[in-house]
Amino acid sequence: MNYNGNKAENVKIAYIGGGSRGWAWGLMSDLAKAEDMSGKVYLYDIDFEAAKHNEIIGNRIKDIPECKSAWEYRAVRTIGEALDGADFVVISILPGTFDEMESDVHTPEKYGIYQSVGDTSGPGGIIRALRTIPMMEEIALAVKEHCPDAWVINYTNPMTVCVKALYTAFPKIKAFGCCHEVFGTQKVLLTALKDICGISDAKRDDIKVNVVGVNHFTWFTKAQYRDIDLFEVYKKFADKYSDSGYEEQIDDNWMNNSFVSAERVKLDLFNRFGYIAAAGDRHLAEFCPGHWYLKSPEQVKEWKFGLTTVAYRKDDLVKRLQKSARLVSGEEQFKIEETGEEGVNQMRALLGLCDLVTNVNIPNTGQITNLPIGAVVETNAVFRSDTLLPVMSGEVPKEIYSLVSRILGEQETIVDAGVNRDLNKAFMAFTMDPLVNLSVCDAKKLFDEMVLNTKDYLNEYFN
Amino acid sequence: MNYNGNKAENVKIAYIGGGSRGWAWGLMSDLAKAEDMSGKVYLYDIDFEAAKHNEIIGNRIKDIPECKSAWEYRAVRTIGEALDGADFVVISILPGTFDEMESDVHTPEKYGIYQSVGDTSGPGGIIRALRTIPMMEEIALAVKEHCPDAWVINYTNPMTVCVKALYTAFPKIKAFGCCHEVFGTQKVLLTALKDICGISDAKRDDIKVNVVGVNHFTWFTKAQYRDIDLFEVYKKFADKYSDSGYEEQIDDNWMNNSFVSAERVKLDLFNRFGYIAAAGDRHLAEFCPGHWYLKSPEQVKEWKFGLTTVAYRKDDLVKRLQKSARLVSGEEQFKIEETGEEGVNQMRALLGLCDLVTNVNIPNTGQITNLPIGAVVETNAVFRSDTLLPVMSGEVPKEIYSLVSRILGEQETIVDAGVNRDLNKAFMAFTMDPLVNLSVCDAKKLFDEMVLNTKDYLNEYFN
Amino acid sequence: MNYNGNKAENVKIAYIGGGSRGWAWGLMSDLAKAEDMSGKVYLYDIDFEAAKHNEIIGNRIKDIPECKSAWEYRAVRTIGEALDGADFVVISILPGTFDEMESDVHTPEKYGIYQSVGDTSGPGGIIRALRTIPMMEEIALAVKEHCPDAWVINYTNPMTVCVKALYTAFPKIKAFGCCHEVFGTQKVLLTALKDICGISDAKRDDIKVNVVGVNHFTWFTKAQYRDIDLFEVYKKFADKYSDSGYEEQIDDNWMNNSFVSAERVKLDLFNRFGYIAAAGDRHLAEFCPGHWYLKSPEQVKEWKFGLTTVAYRKDDLVKRLQKSARLVSGEEQFKIEETGEEGVNQMRALLGLCDLVTNVNIPNTGQITNLPIGAVVETNAVFRSDTLLPVMSGEVPKEIYSLVSRILGEQETIVDAGVNRDLNKAFMAFTMDPLVNLSVCDAKKLFDEMVLNTKDYLNEYFN
Amino acid sequence: MNYNGNKAENVKIAYIGGGSRGWAWGLMSDLAKAEDMSGKVYLYDIDFEAAKHNEIIGNRIKDIPECKSAWEYRAVRTIGEALDGADFVVISILPGTFDEMESDVHTPEKYGIYQSVGDTSGPGGIIRALRTIPMMEEIALAVKEHCPDAWVINYTNPMTVCVKALYTAFPKIKAFGCCHEVFGTQKVLLTALKDICGISDAKRDDIKVNVVGVNHFTWFTKAQYRDIDLFEVYKKFADKYSDSGYEEQIDDNWMNNSFVSAERVKLDLFNRFGYIAAAGDRHLAEFCPGHWYLKSPEQVKEWKFGLTTVAYRKDDLVKRLQKSARLVSGEEQFKIEETGEEGVNQMRALLGLCDLVTNVNIPNTGQITNLPIGAVVETNAVFRSDTLLPVMSGEVPKEIYSLVSRILGEQETIVDAGVNRDLNKAFMAFTMDPLVNLSVCDAKKLFDEMVLNTKDYLNEYFN
Repeated sequence: MNYNGNKAENVKIAYIGGGSRGWAWGLMSDLAKAEDMSGKVYLYDIDFEAAKHNEIIGNRIKDIPECKSAWEYRAVRTIGEALDGADFVVISILPGTFDEMESDVHTPEKYGIYQSVGDTSGPGGIIRALRTIPMMEEIALAVKEHCPDAWVINYTNPMTVCVKALYTAFPKIKAFGCCHEVFGTQKVLLTALKDICGISDAKRDDIKVNVVGVNHFTWFTKAQYRDIDLFEVYKKFADKYSDSGYEEQIDDNWMNNSFVSAERVKLDLFNRFGYIAAAGDRHLAEFCPGHWYLKSPEQVKEWKFGLTTVAYRKDDLVKRLQKSARLVSGEEQFKIEETGEEGVNQMRALLGLCDLVTNVNIPNTGQITNLPIGAVVETNAVFRSDTLLPVMSGEVPKEIYSLVSRILGEQETIVDAGVNRDLNKAFMAFTMDPLVNLSVCDAKKLFDEMVLNTKDYLNEYFN
Repeated sequence: MNYNGNKAENVKIAYIGGGSRGWAWGLMSDLAKAEDMSGKVYLYDIDFEAAKHNEIIGNRIKDIPECKSAWEYRAVRTIGEALDGADFVVISILPGTFDEMESDVHTPEKYGIYQSVGDTSGPGGIIRALRTIPMMEEIALAVKEHCPDAWVINYTNPMTVCVKALYTAFPKIKAFGCCHEVFGTQKVLLTALKDICGISDAKRDDIKVNVVGVNHFTWFTKAQYRDIDLFEVYKKFADKYSDSGYEEQIDDNWMNNSFVSAERVKLDLFNRFGYIAAAGDRHLAEFCPGHWYLKSPEQVKEWKFGLTTVAYRKDDLVKRLQKSARLVSGEEQFKIEETGEEGVNQMRALLGLCDLVTNVNIPNTGQITNLPIGAVVETNAVFRSDTLLPVMSGEVPKEIYSLVSRILGEQETIVDAGVNRDLNKAFMAFTMDPLVNLSVCDAKKLFDEMVLNTKDYLNEYFN
Repeated sequence: MNYNGNKAENVKIAYIGGGSRGWAWGLMSDLAKAEDMSGKVYLYDIDFEAAKHNEIIGNRIKDIPECKSAWEYRAVRTIGEALDGADFVVISILPGTFDEMESDVHTPEKYGIYQSVGDTSGPGGIIRALRTIPMMEEIALAVKEHCPDAWVINYTNPMTVCVKALYTAFPKIKAFGCCHEVFGTQKVLLTALKDICGISDAKRDDIKVNVVGVNHFTWFTKAQYRDIDLFEVYKKFADKYSDSGYEEQIDDNWMNNSFVSAERVKLDLFNRFGYIAAAGDRHLAEFCPGHWYLKSPEQVKEWKFGLTTVAYRKDDLVKRLQKSARLVSGEEQFKIEETGEEGVNQMRALLGLCDLVTNVNIPNTGQITNLPIGAVVETNAVFRSDTLLPVMSGEVPKEIYSLVSRILGEQETIVDAGVNRDLNKAFMAFTMDPLVNLSVCDAKKLFDEMVLNTKDYLNEYFN
Repeated sequence: MNYNGNKAENVKIAYIGGGSRGWAWGLMSDLAKAEDMSGKVYLYDIDFEAAKHNEIIGNRIKDIPECKSAWEYRAVRTIGEALDGADFVVISILPGTFDEMESDVHTPEKYGIYQSVGDTSGPGGIIRALRTIPMMEEIALAVKEHCPDAWVINYTNPMTVCVKALYTAFPKIKAFGCCHEVFGTQKVLLTALKDICGISDAKRDDIKVNVVGVNHFTWFTKAQYRDIDLFEVYKKFADKYSDSGYEEQIDDNWMNNSFVSAERVKLDLFNRFGYIAAAGDRHLAEFCPGHWYLKSPEQVKEWKFGLTTVAYRKDDLVKRLQKSARLVSGEEQFKIEETGEEGVNQMRALLGLCDLVTNVNIPNTGQITNLPIGAVVETNAVFRSDTLLPVMSGEVPKEIYSLVSRILGEQETIVDAGVNRDLNKAFMAFTMDPLVNLSVCDAKKLFDEMVLNTKDYLNEYFN
């Protein structure tokens, strides 16, 4: 990598999971718009063909008129080729296939447990974590070997677990986890600002928030637009919409648009606890006691959010595969779009091209004063030249401490279980989960069944 | 108070709740055996007659041959008389009557919620806390006025809530909460030591334990008898008895003997989490997710502990009233017994007559490293001349952090609710409770009903 | 205050010490260039005439062609008028006159103690602190009464002491201390970058630093320009110049230009301790053991920095008074200049017009992990809409912990002394100072003499 | 090791430095009186003959009528023989000979630096630390290999440095440092209690103190005898004696009796700072700025303590060698005496034979809230069955924070220097020392000379 005036050139990005037909295309869009950066993206994927397709798609982008920055894409067959000399490493993998995810999400339904996402917490998130942790360890050790000074950006879920696993395997790794759920909630506040105050020209990053919590279950303890306290605004918004829900679509991010809700969960949590939960309702519901929002499909419907089925995901994948084929063949042209993601801006800041303050998942060194040191938490952080430092974000308020600390403990335990390949410890986390309202004996049956269903990815736990 | 050689004389103890027919008699026994202390006990109770009866009972004790220390008992009509010039204040009150407790314990059963004690946590403990907090405030302020330097020993439940309320009302109060559940668990370890190793001459206080947690949900993270690691011993005990339960009675403390269990909850928690929960099974069950041990009376039976009904308590009260009458009339003679309590030893240590290391409930100043500063926690502490300092007890282990922190947050929230006379905040705590596996709407119905049932003691919440 | 598009209008700034002929003019310059802010500046000074003159000077600025933002200046006779409804409060006062400062700086010379500045630490700084603390208390209480939500920017020295005194008098004050010494050291790094690497187009705020310490004795533990580790660069710079000193002038800030040094102190500290001390050599020398750099005027000369005499300051004041007269009369025109200060940018950020990460003096809430909580420290912080939060800055490195913690303790003690009007406690701080290499008895004589010399400003200490 | 009723039998103690003619004999005395312990002491010393002599001396003790506990002594030629299977390890070594100590103590006098002890802090303590650290590392690694679960008691100075070096080399070591200076100060309080209050029957361990600081520079922040606040008593004692000094001998411990003082340093520190410094005046003086008490031999005389010359120590050694010869030959009989040390009681407590609360040097895990985590500090701790846990001791008071933290930083730096065999880093610590009031250049000359003088023991620093 080198600088040429105000531009960083020859930046090398290693993309682990480079066959992705979602996040990878988003990154391609964002890189194409980054005028002050250029370089190469090495795509590594266990499905080499998928990476190869993305290489073809990516290398066509520079010919699109809107492209402001030329990047070269290259699929490689080994992780070492991708990582050697990398400045940045992006991790966006699917741990297992949608068949495993089918078990994660739907097997618990036999026991009356409904999950709206099933990839972070809940029985599904726990089993997914077991599959993911050994993969993260492998990646961390490869980073240690090939590019120990590279910055590593993780997008994979379960986020908290992944980031902790990276740091456990390679404590000096410069890794952080990146998630757009907070952005989505900032957009909710934009909506409220317009609906209540009639202000419509504010932008997402004008909404300044203080963030505390764990990923997908972060909370705003302050939200401000200029001199306006957005808690006052959101209170009025809640009074207006908490019963009916806010039915208009808030987020038109093309990555998110199939997962709308009417915000009723978020509004209910605000009414009851006084703080703004900063993730989509589908995520939030899974971190709360099961009887609150996820007792039954009927209750879900009442709260006006959706259960994302794996059938939907499989169907969506088919569409994305078709799109990929069209992009590869040239039948369809790649479209450079606004993703709203901050990964590329984070890279720019780490390269010294700007300062950036945004939310991030990293180990707690004191930024949240009443959660354990070392646990991975989500707060704001400052990104600057080769530096990432969390902002002192205060404490998790008393009112929501039980909810948040419970999840944090569960996730710390599941990492321990994964790192030690210890199914007994995994079962500890399983029984502590807010959705697992089962007797210990039934919980064990469910756990065993889910482990069995996904055993192809859990070999190491049986040695 | 003054010293005469190695004796402390003219010690003044104020007993708030001095009409008690349980703890008060226990204290009388222990004081009668304390050869190096003497003085006066002022009995204050809203039921003056009850205090008066105890005055009569207490003043007869010096005539019993086994009595080694003469104490004068005196019932007083105002709390000020009791507190003026007191060296120690003992708080052991019943917040409300057994009628309120009947609502606390049994109303939730309509919603399928069973409580084995109902005085600490669970819906019952929460409502009881609301009644208790204003009383504790009143006592703390009276201490501030009348005897700000006195040491205050609380026995009232919910313990954590009471101690926090005392400190909130008068931050410089020298108060601590005292509970015998840890002692009971030390006796369990004596039993295991005998059963597994054949060692039968060890005494309770030879069992050295490291204690972390919140009252009634404390955990041993280390237990040692001389050079024997009692975790190894308890593991063998668990292998032997966790299925069947240990049916012989471990504890013959006359205060506890109606509440036996077969230890199956404790053994199950140990098997699953690797640490020894240090309270009776009836208490432990209430802090765990409701489906584990308290889903139904049948499940309780399987786990071989009991649901303490309020009918039992009322019946027991009748017997104690009868006993009181016999003691007052002289028909029955007071018996100086071994209570196993440490209150009097704590007083002796604070007077400089000995050093004592034992468990205690006080605000966290760092003794538990991963729980919030300021929250009331239970750990060991050192008692010496006018000094009480906690022992650095380390962290709550990852495996049980979720369980413990959840309760801690709930109890911090209920104190906040009580201090601010805020029923909305109380409902926050209510919905977070592990036993309240209800939809928000049902939880609200139950909460409102329980508040209504006990509204005579909740006037201040309705202004 | 209100917003008009991207501009904040009708901003009210209260300037305490508004007769200043240095900082006030700097602020006027910076405000004149702030295109997105406008409003009024209320000038309050115990010397009303001085404030009045600045009113005249300030109100002429809008007629200068380079002026991009019109501000109205108004001298007021009471602090209340200045503060009522203020959005920002700027504090820049001289505690006492140059006669008191003459005693502060030069009386210790009789005892062989030489001070290069004498306004922060050393015997002079300590006595100055005693004068200043009651003034800061008064200001804090006035803020509490008139504008409790205003942001308060302090420029007065001793900085650490002033900020702590503000927070002690009004714990909820939104105050921070602002100092340009770190900026000066960033410029030193620009110089090194040019001298060693030939890079000359970098700007001060491209130099990203991690800052830890107490004001005027802060240290960089990391310094980065893009992908260049500036510690490596500064090491080479030190090898080249530590013996001779770097004689070319680094800083042409018109506020600083009479105080040049050859950087030998900073280079020596770097060579010996491995970290970059982030203040001018004149300041740094005063915080180190007296025999290192300030043993005698000859030693000062060797280290190639200067002792700023109060005679110089008095002379300089005469020049500034003359300049003021010319500006008031119109004989001289006010010149809008680059001050390099960040006060106005901090205001813009707090108004939500930009994000800003810069160094600041505020109480430690954990941003420095091995210094006491509550002590005022200097680190980076994030400024955003109505929000100021420190960045987690890690620990003071072992190698310099003794030097820094010693000063911190001294300054905490002097605040305690000031707040309690306790000269005995002030003497504690006095004897702990690194420059006071005297027997206790001699130290007492010097202390008493310095107190006597400045007793007009220390009345409250004699009641 | 095994238990027989209430006795611990076959306890194995490894004594490193087992040829000692001071501490070793003290331990022999204390073991001879320990009725509930018996076993073997393995004496290891680089001077095998000295160890052999102690073997002979020790094995005769069981024939003395006052001996209540038979111990077998055995000199061994390798450290491994001593450590294998040891329950306890005692470290009491002299790092180097009195020739090195002669340089440590007296070379600085050429530069006007006087040291009263020269073994802990000051230029002498620092050079001694450099010799000692590699020895401690070697011992720690031998413990790791031979008896990782043994409890290790260090008596060697510099205490703080030694303990930290042990933990650095083997982080899981169960080591603590043991020092009697606190006991000496408790005896001072006994004296004051008698002198001021006429109470003469109190015993040293009736004086309950809260201890904070670093070894030889610890402070009492509370001292209590029963209901008497000893700070009040000591205040009167100070009023009475601070000018004249208290000339009667306080301590008749045979180990200490050549080192009397008139307590003027301690009284002066109390008068000025309000806390009781808990070590002998000779030690305290060395931790304070050099001009306070150690500016010149005349000043030392005024403050009525002594400079312990190495000539005295050498002379004393000759006497002890003679005594040793007499004891070995049988010409003189070993006398079982009261040492006042607590090492044997600590062993008894760790064996589960009693509880003990006493002061100890171990790494800070939070017991002192405003000193860095990990630094070795001195506070009270609880000794129980195989358990050593510090007591939460609060913060170092503001008034003395500068003094204490400065020393702590110096000692942390010297350990770093030693561990890394880095003389440059050692020089950092050297220049930070309160006694080294020299220009950097002179300090370097002195440092180099002292290193050269003792280079036989500093080989590893020159590779």
